[in-house]
Amino acid sequence: MNHKELVSRLMASVERQMPAKRWKHTLGVVSCSKSLAASFGADAEKAEIAAILHDVAKFWPVERQREAILHEGAEVALGALDYDKDLWHAHAGAYAAKREYGIEDTEILDAIRYHTSGRAGMTLLEKVVCLADYIEPGRDFPGVEDIRRLAEKSLEKALLAAFDGTIVSLLRKRKRIYPLTVYTRNDLLETIIAREAEE
Amino acid sequence: MNHKELVSRLMASVERQMPAKRWKHTLGVVSCSKSLAASFGADAEKAEIAAILHDVAKFWPVERQREAILHEGAEVALGALDYDKDLWHAHAGAYAAKREYGIEDTEILDAIRYHTSGRAGMTLLEKVVCLADYIEPGRDFPGVEDIRRLAEKSLEKALLAAFDGTIVSLLRKRKRIYPLTVYTRNDLLETIIAREAEE
Repeated sequence: MNHKELVSRLMASVERQMPAKRWKHTLGVVSCSKSLAASFGADAEKAEIAAILHDVAKFWPVERQREAILHEGAEVALGALDYDKDLWHAHAGAYAAKREYGIEDTEILDAIRYHTSGRAGMTLLEKVVCLADYIEPGRDFPGVEDIRRLAEKSLEKALLAAFDGTIVSLLRKRKRIYPLTVYTRNDLLETIIAREAEE
Repeated sequence: MNHKELVSRLMASVERQMPAKRWKHTLGVVSCSKSLAASFGADAEKAEIAAILHDVAKFWPVERQREAILHEGAEVALGALDYDKDLWHAHAGAYAAKREYGIEDTEILDAIRYHTSGRAGMTLLEKVVCLADYIEPGRDFPGVEDIRRLAEKSLEKALLAAFDGTIVSLLRKRKRIYPLTVYTRNDLLETIIAREAEE
């Protein structure tokens, strides 16, 4: 199957698994991922596949998401079970991509797995899909324009602003902070500071 | 040596290891710890000892703090070496309390060790000293009055507000967040929510 055929097949299947509004969001993430991939030199085809699949498990019943995570047994995914259910779909999505859609490329699978939390040492592809999920054209939250502006120049600065916004929002809502998000933003901050020191 | 004698001996020794301003802060933490201990039923004598010693290593040369941490080899302390130097004195202080002042009581040692970061599952004594360090009368930062008000009713609510303030301040200053601080505030939040659900 060539890339175009794979894209059509995935699109048709993923669309059926979510409400129209979320599908529209997914299309936004696809187009934004392709555009960020082009700007920052990531693999545009991999970005497209990861973006199509990133929310595939978002509307699965929560128990199905949990079962996928338990079945796969990846440590980071099992750890997420102790935190907000909103985090689960990323891991369940990586599971579905592999088991149900035969995606073997670990770069794509990790871009799906880490699209919500990020992680220390994110790959270029992970950064692209994660940031696209924050700033795709349909997103509208306080500060999104600032993040879009940062994204014109630096994936890392845009992602740091995005994750910091998430942390502040969790504090305000009196919700727990997923520790991996903190490791991610610390790591992005270090990258940015090291780069500034070089300049 | 009775408690009073121990207090006098520690006071005289600790005072010599810090500038007058920090000693004044220490005396504030001592009086605030005793008062919080009385309000919330913690051991006032242990609170006093931990408070006197909590910043004993704060003005040690950074290399001496690092050596104390390496010498002790406690995992949590070694982990702190990867983060801001401001975190080190708490671990070096616990080391000094044990090695230089012969304090064997682990409750006191842990109240010194966790006075900056907290930890999940903080003891009553740890909460008292940690909170006293935030709100002793000499402290003056935006929001301290709110925390003092919360401290009249709940150690956990006051500490959650204090740690959340620390996190926001680190985000603003573009500094790394110590992950243990996040585990601490998540744990405090869970305790508060569980208690509210019972009421």
